[in-house]
Amino acid sequence: MASRKTIIGIIGGAETSQENYRLAYDVGKYIAGNGAILACGGLSGTMEAASKGAFDNSGCVIGFLPGGEKSEANAYVHIAIPTGLGIARNILVVRSSDALIAFPGSYGTLSEIALALNLGKTVVYMPGTWDLKKIAPVDSALFKEAFDASQAIGLALNSLKGGGAI
Amino acid sequence: MASRKTIIGIIGGAETSQENYRLAYDVGKYIAGNGAILACGGLSGTMEAASKGAFDNSGCVIGFLPGGEKSEANAYVHIAIPTGLGIARNILVVRSSDALIAFPGSYGTLSEIALALNLGKTVVYMPGTWDLKKIAPVDSALFKEAFDASQAIGLALNSLKGGGAI
Amino acid sequence: MASRKTIIGIIGGAETSQENYRLAYDVGKYIAGNGAILACGGLSGTMEAASKGAFDNSGCVIGFLPGGEKSEANAYVHIAIPTGLGIARNILVVRSSDALIAFPGSYGTLSEIALALNLGKTVVYMPGTWDLKKIAPVDSALFKEAFDASQAIGLALNSLKGGGAI
Amino acid sequence: MASRKTIIGIIGGAETSQENYRLAYDVGKYIAGNGAILACGGLSGTMEAASKGAFDNSGCVIGFLPGGEKSEANAYVHIAIPTGLGIARNILVVRSSDALIAFPGSYGTLSEIALALNLGKTVVYMPGTWDLKKIAPVDSALFKEAFDASQAIGLALNSLKGGGAI
Repeated sequence: MASRKTIIGIIGGAETSQENYRLAYDVGKYIAGNGAILACGGLSGTMEAASKGAFDNSGCVIGFLPGGEKSEANAYVHIAIPTGLGIARNILVVRSSDALIAFPGSYGTLSEIALALNLGKTVVYMPGTWDLKKIAPVDSALFKEAFDASQAIGLALNSLKGGGAI
Repeated sequence: MASRKTIIGIIGGAETSQENYRLAYDVGKYIAGNGAILACGGLSGTMEAASKGAFDNSGCVIGFLPGGEKSEANAYVHIAIPTGLGIARNILVVRSSDALIAFPGSYGTLSEIALALNLGKTVVYMPGTWDLKKIAPVDSALFKEAFDASQAIGLALNSLKGGGAI
Repeated sequence: MASRKTIIGIIGGAETSQENYRLAYDVGKYIAGNGAILACGGLSGTMEAASKGAFDNSGCVIGFLPGGEKSEANAYVHIAIPTGLGIARNILVVRSSDALIAFPGSYGTLSEIALALNLGKTVVYMPGTWDLKKIAPVDSALFKEAFDASQAIGLALNSLKGGGAI
Repeated sequence: MASRKTIIGIIGGAETSQENYRLAYDVGKYIAGNGAILACGGLSGTMEAASKGAFDNSGCVIGFLPGGEKSEANAYVHIAIPTGLGIARNILVVRSSDALIAFPGSYGTLSEIALALNLGKTVVYMPGTWDLKKIAPVDSALFKEAFDASQAIGLALNSLKGGGAI
C-alpha cells in the first residue's frame, strides 16, 4: 500500500540509565529520519527517550498506554492510545511493530521480547537487556544484538526487506 | 501537549449503502481538514470510505484490525494495528478516540456506541444507525444526531472544547 | 466432551431494583439446578444476585472482573478472574457463555448484548432491559424475551439443544 | 471468602517430552488433590497433561483458549473460555492464577513467566524451562526451582500462605 507506514517498536524500562536514555533518544531520531513511525508503551524512561528523539526529528510517535487516560503519555507522543488493558497492552506494542528494538528493562520488557519472537518478529537487542541466547537456542535470524543506535536501526530496517512483514 | 493529536473515531458497517459511503467519505475529509487523526476498525464499507476521505485530504488514518495481519487493512490506512484481538478490538477504536461519529451498522457498531457512552465519550450519530434514545433515556449531551458531514464533524469537535477529553 | 460444562452468562446493572435482584437470584438458582456454570462480571447488583442464587444452590460461579484484584469479586464467586482489562472484560463474559440472560442495565450491559448478538449467541432478555427490536430488525431466533426466571433459563438452555454452540 | 477457590496455573509447551508429560500429569493430579483449580491455556502437550491429571483426580480445569471456539480445548477442560484474543490470552492464565508452575516451553511460555513476575506472582519452574536467573538477578522469593511434582505443588501452595494473593 502506498499509504502504509513502517512501524518500529521500542521496548525497555520505564527507568533507565543516562547512557541508555541517550541511546534510545538516538534510535528514536533514526527511526524518524528513516520515515518510520515509532511505537512504544508511551510512558517514561526508555519510552520517553525514544519518543523525544523521534519528536525532535519531526517523526510520529504512537504510545500504547496501560491506563485509560491520554494524559498518562509522555510529552512526545502524538497518537496516545489509552488502552485500559494494563500490562496486556504490551501485545499491541509488539503486534503493531514490523520489527522491535529492545533496551534493558524488567519483566515487562522480557514479555514483549517473548511475544515478538513468538510472532516471528525481529528483535534487535541492545547490550544489557535479556540475552536469551545464553539460556536457550533462540533463532539468531530473529534475535540480533546491536551495539549502537545506527546499527540497531539498520538491522531492524534490513529485516523488513523483501518480506511480507510490512 | 503540543504534540498530542485529536483523534476522531468513525464506526459503522463493513457493508454500507452508496449514500452512506459518500457521507463517510466526506466526514473523513473533514476530519483530515481539521487536523485530526481518524481512527477506525480498518476494514471495508464505512471504515474504508472514511479512510479514503481522510487519505485524499492528506490526513492520517489509524486502523485497529481484528486479525493479526496488516494486509487486512483497507488501502487508505497509514497506521495499521493488527491487534489479533478479534471483535475485542472495538474497545481500542473507542478508547483511542476523543469523540466518535456513528454510521449505520450492525451489532459491532452497536457495541462501539455502547462502549463509548459507557466511557463518557460523545457519540455523534447519523440517520439510520442505532437510535438508542427511542428505547432508553440516553444522555443527550453525549449522544447527538447529525444530518450531514459538516454538522457531524462540528458536533464532534465542539464536544472537545474546554474539556479534559483530549 | 464428557468434561465440558455448559456456561450461562448473566448480564445486567451493578445497581438493580429489589425486584430484579430477586429475579436474578432465581435465575442463578435455576442455572445451578440445571448443572450449568454461571458466568458474569463478578461485581454487585445483578451479578451478585445471580451469583448468590447459584451459590445457594451449590452451583459454580465464574466472575470476570475488570480490575486486577480477586478481592473485587462479590462473595459468591468461586472462580475469580481479575482480568485487568477494564470494560474490555465484557467480551470474556460473552465469549465464555453458551447463551446469555440480560437484565436491565446501562451501557455496559448494552455492549454485552451487542457483542453476544455479533457472535451469534442467544440472548434471553428480561423486561426493562434494552429492547433492541423496537429500533432495528433483530434476529428473533437469537434475541428472545422472557418474563420470569423459569422461562428465561428454559429459553437459554433450549437454544443450546442440537447445536454446536456448546 | 468461603467460596473463593485457589487457582494454580500450569504453563509450558504445546509440544512436550514423554517425561514432562508425565510430570505435568502428576502436578495436575496434586493440584486437584489439594482442592485447587487448575488454569492453563487449554490446548495440547503440557496443558493437556496437567488437565488430564486434574481431571483424573476429580479436579476442575479452566482453559483460556486463544481462538473463539470451545472445541479447541483439550478433552479434560471443564470450563473452556474461548477468548478470541490470540496469544494475548496468556495474560488471563497468569492473572487468574494465584501461583504458577512453569514447564519447558517456547516463547509463549516465556511471556507467561515474564508477565507473572511482572505482577509479583510466584513462578515455580521445572528443569529445562527458561532459567532466567542465569541472565539476570531475578527475585528468588518469586522464582523458585522444583525438581519433582510434589515439590512443585508444595512450593506453589506455600507461597500463598499468609498472603493477600488468594
